[in-house]
Amino acid sequence: MRAPGGFPVVGIIGGGQLARMCAGPAAELGITVSVLAEAPDASAALVIPSAPVGSHADVDAVLAFAAHCDVVTFDHEHVPAPVLSALVAAGVPLHPTPEALVFAQDKLAMRSRLTEMGMPCPRWALARSAADVAAFAEEAGWPIIAKTPRGGYDGKGVLVARSADDMAEWLSHEGTEETGLLLEEKVDFVRELAVLVARSPSGQAAAWPVVETVQTEGICTEVLAPAPDLSPDLAACATESALRIAGELGVTGVLAVEMFEVRDGQGQPGFVVNELAMRPHNSGHWSMDGAVTGQFEQHLRAVLDLPLGEPTPHHRWTVMANVLGGSDEELYSAYRHVMARDPGAKVHLYGKGVRPGRKIGHVNVSGEDLGGLRERAGHAAAYIEGRVRE
Amino acid sequence: MRAPGGFPVVGIIGGGQLARMCAGPAAELGITVSVLAEAPDASAALVIPSAPVGSHADVDAVLAFAAHCDVVTFDHEHVPAPVLSALVAAGVPLHPTPEALVFAQDKLAMRSRLTEMGMPCPRWALARSAADVAAFAEEAGWPIIAKTPRGGYDGKGVLVARSADDMAEWLSHEGTEETGLLLEEKVDFVRELAVLVARSPSGQAAAWPVVETVQTEGICTEVLAPAPDLSPDLAACATESALRIAGELGVTGVLAVEMFEVRDGQGQPGFVVNELAMRPHNSGHWSMDGAVTGQFEQHLRAVLDLPLGEPTPHHRWTVMANVLGGSDEELYSAYRHVMARDPGAKVHLYGKGVRPGRKIGHVNVSGEDLGGLRERAGHAAAYIEGRVRE
Repeated sequence: MRAPGGFPVVGIIGGGQLARMCAGPAAELGITVSVLAEAPDASAALVIPSAPVGSHADVDAVLAFAAHCDVVTFDHEHVPAPVLSALVAAGVPLHPTPEALVFAQDKLAMRSRLTEMGMPCPRWALARSAADVAAFAEEAGWPIIAKTPRGGYDGKGVLVARSADDMAEWLSHEGTEETGLLLEEKVDFVRELAVLVARSPSGQAAAWPVVETVQTEGICTEVLAPAPDLSPDLAACATESALRIAGELGVTGVLAVEMFEVRDGQGQPGFVVNELAMRPHNSGHWSMDGAVTGQFEQHLRAVLDLPLGEPTPHHRWTVMANVLGGSDEELYSAYRHVMARDPGAKVHLYGKGVRPGRKIGHVNVSGEDLGGLRERAGHAAAYIEGRVRE
Repeated sequence: MRAPGGFPVVGIIGGGQLARMCAGPAAELGITVSVLAEAPDASAALVIPSAPVGSHADVDAVLAFAAHCDVVTFDHEHVPAPVLSALVAAGVPLHPTPEALVFAQDKLAMRSRLTEMGMPCPRWALARSAADVAAFAEEAGWPIIAKTPRGGYDGKGVLVARSADDMAEWLSHEGTEETGLLLEEKVDFVRELAVLVARSPSGQAAAWPVVETVQTEGICTEVLAPAPDLSPDLAACATESALRIAGELGVTGVLAVEMFEVRDGQGQPGFVVNELAMRPHNSGHWSMDGAVTGQFEQHLRAVLDLPLGEPTPHHRWTVMANVLGGSDEELYSAYRHVMARDPGAKVHLYGKGVRPGRKIGHVNVSGEDLGGLRERAGHAAAYIEGRVRE
């Protein structure tokens, strides 16, 4: 149902937690969101009245969905190119556009474009055969990182190969010879950083402070905002690079640039770009409670070509800890302890069923004492997960 | 639909903006809210999937609604006593309970109970006849303030009577002789204050800082949080009084205590209690963006008997300006100017149709410079209302 007052409807393809977390800011701004959901009990469908069920890969379903939206954006990068083309042909305003989105969908396209732009990247190659792998390994050394160009997330679609044998199975997959694999050197990094920016179709852009992301077994578990002890020059350079990527690729909406912080031969800090995501991103969840404008509000403003909001943090530090599914399907009873122990913790759970390792929520805490905040966020997350019981 | 994880359903009777603004915090916490809405396009029904339509005065509709809720609370104070009794008889956990709520529903009950508690109140009397009015006016002097005990809001149900003639029509209303009217002296106040507290069924309570509320023609137009230049003793006393009212009346959920700041014969600051509201309240809208825990999250936590969140402000000042309906039904096009002029303004619109003077939204701004914040919030609200166009 359309709200009175001339407010637009933003369609989001995919009903995951990123779509869900747009619901609050949209309601605040009076903007209607509608999601094309995987299922009636998808995370976003539980909190958004307009949530037709349909597949992001079904052209007819997507076109029917888009017909009642003023602009369409995405919960994930998995919408196939033919579906995107059909939307464009039907005149649906898409943000990001397919021309930009391809660099988040296809890691080979991303590497090749960033290399053209002169962005620092790991050494990389396209491999279609064992011979290609051997040639790259000779140059970069083992282990090498192999990635499927499309469809990976949270460590899926990524292989750390220690020898040619480790690569044999992946090379034998049907279609690999056609699409190729992305090979990358294993970067000897100091830590992982992420830069989150937003850009509107008019070209206005805004950046949040550079954050440190902590990964456990390929899944982001903690974000420190801003990244502690980051060289101001590196922070400026990383931010400028993310804004340049957003501009040159024509990104509209939120863009996350995941980076490795590295040291050069003289020990000077630098970065290489790891991944791009063109949507709100786990590295920006801290901003929901920690910044004047959170990433979900900013994404809505950007895709609607509204002026962007101020990304300034409220406090010196905000720490986010992800809540991953554990063994216990019951979550609510943890609230009594977590909220009593820490009245300042901001708990977010996504209405998702528990599966081990699945991202089901996060906790934000803000303040002055970074060490204390890490303990608080980590404890709350661990308690909800069922990993600690005191 | 129930979310997995053992999360409860909070039912809210009434689909106005107060119910609507619970939606964001509920989604964040993974708690489901369901509203009994006045109409399919009620403010809250536009953003909450579970929003059956029904009247708060219809016992059957309310009982059917409550059957799928774990706890029931209110968007307004207008649920009739027989409906509340039927809910209690059916074993529905109600917060606030009818025993507490009556002191927000019935201004005569409120005045008499607060007077028993020794709370400072304006001089007041129950009047059923012209003779009662004359007796009170002799003691308190003209003008006097007459209030219908039940059903008033935003200046409705309140009469400033300058003479016995002004009272004649109200006294002649059917039912007045039975219910009586509340008469109050016209308080010579310095300004209006409000204290917002939350209390849980377990008895835990938390208070936000005392705020100043600015009224225009009986409608709140601006809130300054905290109240500037407030005597620390008065702030402590007002807060302690609000917490005592919450405790002694057995309030569960958010309680707003509206007060007049006055001076005694020696010029010392004090207060008298003006009104009570047992629900999230306009004087607490600043907390959505300005405090660690906003009033809507806190109300949910309180009615669920979860530990309460920290009410600490993020910044020295937050100013809220209400957006009232003007003559223009189109609102969205104002966003371009308002957001470009002030990227830090937090705009909230409620999805309500425009009627002159109707509360349709509010704007929050936080920072260090109170004067600048008042200008910013006021300008954004006025621009959306259509009162200024530059």
